[in-house]
Amino acid sequence: MALDCGQVTVLGAGSWGTALACHLAGDERTVKLWARRTELIEEINTCRENKRYLPGIFLPASIQVTVDLEQALAGAEVVVFSVPSHTFRAVLRKALPFIPAGALIVNTAKGIEENSMQRLSEVFISEAGPARAKNYAVLSGPSHAEEVALKMPTAVVVASASQHTAVLAQDLFMRENLRVYTNPDIIGVELGGALKNVIALGTGIVDGLSGSDNAKAALMTRGLTEITRLGMAMHANPLTFAGLAGLGDLIVTCTSRHSRNRRAGIAIGRGKTLQQALDEVNMVVEGVRTTRAAHKLSATWGVEMPITEQMYQVLFHNLPPRAAVNNLMTRGKTREVEELALAKIKW
Amino acid sequence: MALDCGQVTVLGAGSWGTALACHLAGDERTVKLWARRTELIEEINTCRENKRYLPGIFLPASIQVTVDLEQALAGAEVVVFSVPSHTFRAVLRKALPFIPAGALIVNTAKGIEENSMQRLSEVFISEAGPARAKNYAVLSGPSHAEEVALKMPTAVVVASASQHTAVLAQDLFMRENLRVYTNPDIIGVELGGALKNVIALGTGIVDGLSGSDNAKAALMTRGLTEITRLGMAMHANPLTFAGLAGLGDLIVTCTSRHSRNRRAGIAIGRGKTLQQALDEVNMVVEGVRTTRAAHKLSATWGVEMPITEQMYQVLFHNLPPRAAVNNLMTRGKTREVEELALAKIKW
Repeated sequence: MALDCGQVTVLGAGSWGTALACHLAGDERTVKLWARRTELIEEINTCRENKRYLPGIFLPASIQVTVDLEQALAGAEVVVFSVPSHTFRAVLRKALPFIPAGALIVNTAKGIEENSMQRLSEVFISEAGPARAKNYAVLSGPSHAEEVALKMPTAVVVASASQHTAVLAQDLFMRENLRVYTNPDIIGVELGGALKNVIALGTGIVDGLSGSDNAKAALMTRGLTEITRLGMAMHANPLTFAGLAGLGDLIVTCTSRHSRNRRAGIAIGRGKTLQQALDEVNMVVEGVRTTRAAHKLSATWGVEMPITEQMYQVLFHNLPPRAAVNNLMTRGKTREVEELALAKIKW
Repeated sequence: MALDCGQVTVLGAGSWGTALACHLAGDERTVKLWARRTELIEEINTCRENKRYLPGIFLPASIQVTVDLEQALAGAEVVVFSVPSHTFRAVLRKALPFIPAGALIVNTAKGIEENSMQRLSEVFISEAGPARAKNYAVLSGPSHAEEVALKMPTAVVVASASQHTAVLAQDLFMRENLRVYTNPDIIGVELGGALKNVIALGTGIVDGLSGSDNAKAALMTRGLTEITRLGMAMHANPLTFAGLAGLGDLIVTCTSRHSRNRRAGIAIGRGKTLQQALDEVNMVVEGVRTTRAAHKLSATWGVEMPITEQMYQVLFHNLPPRAAVNNLMTRGKTREVEELALAKIKW
């Protein structure tokens, strides 16, 4: 593989960007890691460690850190974006002039842009132009950065409009500790990664209310069902949501002790207001803004999303969580999969 | 609904049978609960509690307990089977002469009969005859008995070859704390409920080995993918496995502290042999016999099931768990959903 020795640039030195730089760096390959803050560069150059975002992990000398975008991107054959989703457009716009033509672009951010309601691949095309879409891939799935850095077994998915690009990205990332599957369904992979945060927040609320395992499993299952329903309206493949970027990421996010979405949800379930919960967690809680986006998408595409609707009412209209649960439990009788319209067995 | 006041008989006074008897009993309905052991009858009649299987839950006087099958079934409009799956055929055979014609039969047992390799609805038809299949429904999904008895919010699915029967069962069980969905796919619901135990055992092994959240999420997701693949070969609907009887039950079984499958898996992951693990748990671990059944079904239907294969080697051929994980991680490159053959978006 030509890519085996190609130069890789990772933009963003948070947990995931740093872990992926470690993952990709090796004896024969230099990885350039771009960070926004000079202090971080100095820390990494001095200690070979990113203490705030990936403590305890050694960064080899084959990782070169820089704050200079142009220098970071010079000669890049692969550019990995690991910046927060709400900064993706701005960073992309600054980076584009320096990204060599034909470079493979891999985006690991998950989210929906708030004002435009665009998925990040749409943001990419709107900035980079449609001709570059064939070089663009998304990497998603259940992947705590710390565990990948510690070489624990992990499986992820890469999606791209181009099979060639997806396979290039698969070859680039696949190792004994990281298994990479390809999927042509970029819409489904992007929606799964973004919308699962709404359900994680809801699962936290159920935890805070009652800690019922039955209720949490039901919420996760029916939550994934309504995300799938929306995805199908938006031309995604329903089976993508049963895969690593849907179900897999949902499981990690809803069951992890570390999930901020879940922690904020627990506080709300125990009677705190949204603002009190956010103050308590004191970090960005993606599920809050994603609930607003999901609610808007549900209306735009005319898709019934009862869990999203109740989450929206709890977060933004002070509906007591217990009333939301009652509303969900006492809806009309329904079939389990009829809305997915794919049932091969019919009565 | 005529059924609202109809007589219900529950066969089997384990946790789930007792919880369902409580759920269905009310001011206007008597529920007869059949138990195998006289001592249990005496205990319930004296204390109104099933101390071994559902401690702390009050059994109202509208639940009448008996060891006499004929008496239990006299006049029954609904018969709920809640016996262990490996005893289903024997209990059914004894009960059949006393079950009134036209009674609704609801089975809550989950499993595949070991020698015949039949699903329990096939066992039913082989004993009761095909004419009675239209009155038969399966109830499944993520439902810890204790939580249902405590009226915590729970969602389940009922499947039947007859829509009329499914809707009758839905009306019978639906309450504010129990939401019931219908599904025509009885094969998928039965397979999901049985095969999820293989994955729960595997998740336990990963927990015992490393505790990696990424690896557990990947195992659950890819495990459900291969169960779905088998299910499709056996004419189930793939979306059923993304529903309550598949994904929902998988989540509860793989994440619960109480799951015996998971506990046995943890012991094996920490280096115990299968026998040592079973001795440690000291109760029936369904996933062990289900792994044998799944392995056989995989061969019979010619479906590749890599996780089941590795589980089989670990349990029955002393493959070290770490080697099994390595085998799974270093398989050839593959696409995520191509085997499901339903991808609408193709490269």
